[in-house]
Amino acid sequence: MSESSVQPHSLLACGLPVPPPPLPAADALALARLLVAPSLDAGLVRELERITGRRAEPLSNVPPPPDAPLLCVGDALPDALRTDRLLWFHSVNAGTDPLLAGGPWPAPALLTRTVGRMGERIAQYVLGWMLAEAQSVPEFAERHARAHWERLPSELVAGRTALVYGTGRIGAAVGRLLGACGVRTVGVARTARYGPAPGTDRVVPPGFDRVIGAAEDAGVLGEARWVISTLPLTAATEGFFGAERFAALRGATFVNVGRGATVDMGALEAALRDGRLRRAVLDVLPAEPAAPQDPVWKLPRTVITSHSAGITTDEDIAVDFAACWDDVTAGRRPGLTVDTGRGY
Amino acid sequence: MSESSVQPHSLLACGLPVPPPPLPAADALALARLLVAPSLDAGLVRELERITGRRAEPLSNVPPPPDAPLLCVGDALPDALRTDRLLWFHSVNAGTDPLLAGGPWPAPALLTRTVGRMGERIAQYVLGWMLAEAQSVPEFAERHARAHWERLPSELVAGRTALVYGTGRIGAAVGRLLGACGVRTVGVARTARYGPAPGTDRVVPPGFDRVIGAAEDAGVLGEARWVISTLPLTAATEGFFGAERFAALRGATFVNVGRGATVDMGALEAALRDGRLRRAVLDVLPAEPAAPQDPVWKLPRTVITSHSAGITTDEDIAVDFAACWDDVTAGRRPGLTVDTGRGY
Repeated sequence: MSESSVQPHSLLACGLPVPPPPLPAADALALARLLVAPSLDAGLVRELERITGRRAEPLSNVPPPPDAPLLCVGDALPDALRTDRLLWFHSVNAGTDPLLAGGPWPAPALLTRTVGRMGERIAQYVLGWMLAEAQSVPEFAERHARAHWERLPSELVAGRTALVYGTGRIGAAVGRLLGACGVRTVGVARTARYGPAPGTDRVVPPGFDRVIGAAEDAGVLGEARWVISTLPLTAATEGFFGAERFAALRGATFVNVGRGATVDMGALEAALRDGRLRRAVLDVLPAEPAAPQDPVWKLPRTVITSHSAGITTDEDIAVDFAACWDDVTAGRRPGLTVDTGRGY
Repeated sequence: MSESSVQPHSLLACGLPVPPPPLPAADALALARLLVAPSLDAGLVRELERITGRRAEPLSNVPPPPDAPLLCVGDALPDALRTDRLLWFHSVNAGTDPLLAGGPWPAPALLTRTVGRMGERIAQYVLGWMLAEAQSVPEFAERHARAHWERLPSELVAGRTALVYGTGRIGAAVGRLLGACGVRTVGVARTARYGPAPGTDRVVPPGFDRVIGAAEDAGVLGEARWVISTLPLTAATEGFFGAERFAALRGATFVNVGRGATVDMGALEAALRDGRLRRAVLDVLPAEPAAPQDPVWKLPRTVITSHSAGITTDEDIAVDFAACWDDVTAGRRPGLTVDTGRGY
């Protein structure tokens, strides 16, 4: 393995293209030891053993003695395993930025992830909080608590505009569900995945009425009733929602189901205080978990939901790992492969 | 007008078929005085004057002196106007049971109603409250208030079953929206509108995966995650949700966007107390508005939303009245005609 040089820390890699690692070879996979995070439920571990046909050992900072290749399933990679021995790491989470930020990624290792029904889960989270606001759920709870009958009109979401940052699986699932409620959905693509072919209109991915590039959002931010972020954390998205974007808002509600560090929290607070931002629903924060004394809990018109929007279940992990296993053993690159250069 | 005998009070009429009244004749409509409820907004009144080409007078218990036919727009019909002089009454609300229950309906008079975007509004109300529960909206608000970070898993609504009582416009709108979220929707039709043709399967109206008759619901109530009622109040639906139906539940949440008197409140409370009913979301009550001392506010795991799910706007009223006007003046029966015998 002469190409064993490690990648630079992906957050500093600025999204430079990284050639995909070769798939794990059949002979190496046959020899590989299965290491699983000690936090995994026993039933899930049995399922992973059944899929791979081998016994599981605990994933720890001490690699098992024989020099066999390693197949790991978990949420974090100990430094001692960031070596050429790592054949394949399957993340139990969809977001792999903590894994990639924890140290240099051993280039030849395959990284796959669990998405599960995350698109569906996150879409229902987003719509649930949008409708909770439109239907005055907190206001009715308050009226009920004091036995006060008061008719409150609702807001129809149909015909209003949602700007959805990120046009991948999760952004598209959000767009599709919002579209079913009659919301006008504008996807904002950071990369050129859906860029226009020369001389043609931009290709609109399913789930959106329209897609624009991140550089073209200034004109649309003012029309948006909702700004929804599904952006991953990369060097290019750190602080992406800063003073300039917030200044362009005219009363939108901001929903962040991506990553907390994509938001400049000072700019968010200023926009909440001057009303350009109507409300904020933050599933994610730059520093998690937030301690009780963290001032973030005191932001006006904000609710924090403790990184709960896309909790993966054991079933999600088993189903997605099994799909990756089937792909790899058949010589196909799994659809759930993470581009360790881009960071997602 | 020899057929001027009044109909019996519709709630006691047991849904006997009533021949539709003749449409208002062009000469009578040309002479008719426009009476509008004093509660209507001035802008809406101007719009009604524009549509009908005449000045509006206040709708009160004193009919205007000349013996002209009457065209009324409002929410209640004073006794003094329940006569043969009434040519046409347009209800500003979708539910016309208070109008019909207020006294005998003068048979020759056309009754039309405002539906507006009510199907869409009520569907978003239903989904909003379903998702608020599935996404733990009240629980997160409580955690946030005490600055407590805690991950709470959400419940995916997809694949679970909603029983939707009423397969008319509103029920179908609810079914369609829930279907877009992957919910399995079973419509319960009280009337034979969608009954099976002999020897064939039942026709499934749009918006539902399946439709059953009200007599066949016992087997499905136990599977339902949600029981949603859009039923109007008629003699046949009074107390429709009683001890027997509630006893068949296995942890469903009940959402009532129909009429309060379709529910036996004692049976509802018993089912909430023994857990067969998980939660109740009541937009409507048998007696409205509920006074602060009404024990209904103390029901466990219940929220009351003060008859707000389908508030019609002035725009809804103007648009629907204009459509009825166009139909009547063209000699067509309006789609928004109320069958005063069935009561909706």
